[in-house]
Amino acid sequence: MSKVVRFHRIGGPEVLQIDDVDVRSPNAGEVRIKVKALGLNRAEAMYRLGQYTFTPEMPATLGYEAAGTIESVGPGVTEYAVGDEVNVIPAFSFADYGMYGELAVAPVHALVRQPAGMTSVEAAGTWMQFVTAYGALVDIGNLQKGDTVLIRAASSSVGLAAIQIANILGAVPVALTRTSEKRQALLDAGAAHVIATQEQDLVSEVNRITAGAGARMAFDPVGGPEVANVLRALSYLGIFFQYGALDTADMSIPVMEVLGKDLTIRGYQLFEITQDPERLDGAKAFITKGLQSGSLRPLIAKVFPLAQIVDAHRFMESNAQIGKIAIEI
Amino acid sequence: MSKVVRFHRIGGPEVLQIDDVDVRSPNAGEVRIKVKALGLNRAEAMYRLGQYTFTPEMPATLGYEAAGTIESVGPGVTEYAVGDEVNVIPAFSFADYGMYGELAVAPVHALVRQPAGMTSVEAAGTWMQFVTAYGALVDIGNLQKGDTVLIRAASSSVGLAAIQIANILGAVPVALTRTSEKRQALLDAGAAHVIATQEQDLVSEVNRITAGAGARMAFDPVGGPEVANVLRALSYLGIFFQYGALDTADMSIPVMEVLGKDLTIRGYQLFEITQDPERLDGAKAFITKGLQSGSLRPLIAKVFPLAQIVDAHRFMESNAQIGKIAIEI
Repeated sequence: MSKVVRFHRIGGPEVLQIDDVDVRSPNAGEVRIKVKALGLNRAEAMYRLGQYTFTPEMPATLGYEAAGTIESVGPGVTEYAVGDEVNVIPAFSFADYGMYGELAVAPVHALVRQPAGMTSVEAAGTWMQFVTAYGALVDIGNLQKGDTVLIRAASSSVGLAAIQIANILGAVPVALTRTSEKRQALLDAGAAHVIATQEQDLVSEVNRITAGAGARMAFDPVGGPEVANVLRALSYLGIFFQYGALDTADMSIPVMEVLGKDLTIRGYQLFEITQDPERLDGAKAFITKGLQSGSLRPLIAKVFPLAQIVDAHRFMESNAQIGKIAIEI
Repeated sequence: MSKVVRFHRIGGPEVLQIDDVDVRSPNAGEVRIKVKALGLNRAEAMYRLGQYTFTPEMPATLGYEAAGTIESVGPGVTEYAVGDEVNVIPAFSFADYGMYGELAVAPVHALVRQPAGMTSVEAAGTWMQFVTAYGALVDIGNLQKGDTVLIRAASSSVGLAAIQIANILGAVPVALTRTSEKRQALLDAGAAHVIATQEQDLVSEVNRITAGAGARMAFDPVGGPEVANVLRALSYLGIFFQYGALDTADMSIPVMEVLGKDLTIRGYQLFEITQDPERLDGAKAFITKGLQSGSLRPLIAKVFPLAQIVDAHRFMESNAQIGKIAIEI
């Protein structure tokens, strides 16, 4: 029997419990991993709350990201062997797999070898953030040198990843954050500019930064009423990526803004990249190169033990963190 | 002095008046046209109402489409000569040019030779509708054989053009109309299916037509609250084109729908095509070929004399028409 985090009803962090579970053997195309570390994701909190893109069946397992050692392989698996150090990239549904546990089954297509020189905690928190930002900024959005990109919730792990990727491309990352509390931390993390949206006028600040042209791209995991202002700050042919929905209320979209500037509003989940082997290979190559050169560096906000998974989720929902929250087992 | 339609204040059709104006000579890169026919456009009504993408300066001229004979050419114009029969494609701003008059100055880049075999009334009403539909469905959207496209306000000239273009591509045009009043006319115009959105459930009808997959594309000049249902009827990676805003109120967008299906909402005006010489050449070639083969045919709803421009605008706003409203001079 292994310790596995599950929930038996929809709710807050407190519904997460550690059950003793007999984790099944891997089938063809799968491996079973002895998990050393987990990266936590907002998507997991939304799933637990019943606010994700599909509804959990109880008891539900969860977890997109892990680092660990392969403990057994399913029939026909040749790419990986017992003892290999691997990371799990989100490329599956919680309906099929969940990483929150001492042992977890994962599909081979979601694996990548752990980059040299990274700790398990760093590696577990690496792939969701960088693949998510890469997919929007590079694969779909084709962000170019000199382009301005507005990064909302910039102190989240994906926001920080977007700042780093924008800097690799020679683009201008503008961090949007609610108050000036995290301003210096965001500048230190590589933001070219920081706009505190509750204290400054977003549109006039972006116009000032871009000499009136507006930003070519926005990257937003929030949604909600502020989206209208972000759209107003975009340039002609600007593209707005909605990659999460912390605010699940309908977005109110100023239609003349969208029409007048030929804007694109693009829903985006990293599965569009991770479930396409060719595009995922492009992401792995870009990110591995960035990690090796040091231009990509995952920032770990705090590490919890597995027994404190409820506290770790509470911390995630506090919005006090800068970077990734991890579990070390 | 020539008769030119202008307005001196924002308002309904009644603000349009016929003034005696000394139409200026063409400058370099321009011609002056003796106008034989005009095509009317919703954009002109919105401009008159102060609801367009920019605000008119008074007295304001307007009009995107015309067919006529070149009466004089500006310095250095060699591509066209006095006496040539030409059509005007919307590739300019009303702040610079307006076609509503007996004589009108137009920029050379907006001209195309009138296709053989077409009357001036047909030709005047051809280019806006086909270039607009072509730009979204073909140039940007890359609509493929077998794809389903939802066409809102399907009995408008652009809606009918989209039906014809979808049929050329082997795609499945689904006409959306408010009541079943125009059902037979839309089937006759080439729609594979007609959904009366006030009488039928849009999402379940589209699911039935697409065997649960949803439509790959929607093409909408309206906006407003119905957009949410159109988005619900789209497939994974579906694209929603907003090419007009008859309803200028903010659109309410279900964020989980956009996120869960990686949808694209794309503001689109045909200027994106007409102001890019290479893309405009692609449009001219596609449309000329379609007109010559008979697979593209502009449908003229009603023809008015210039003196009845107010009545013509009233008729446009009645939504009773099927196809293009034209002025014959």
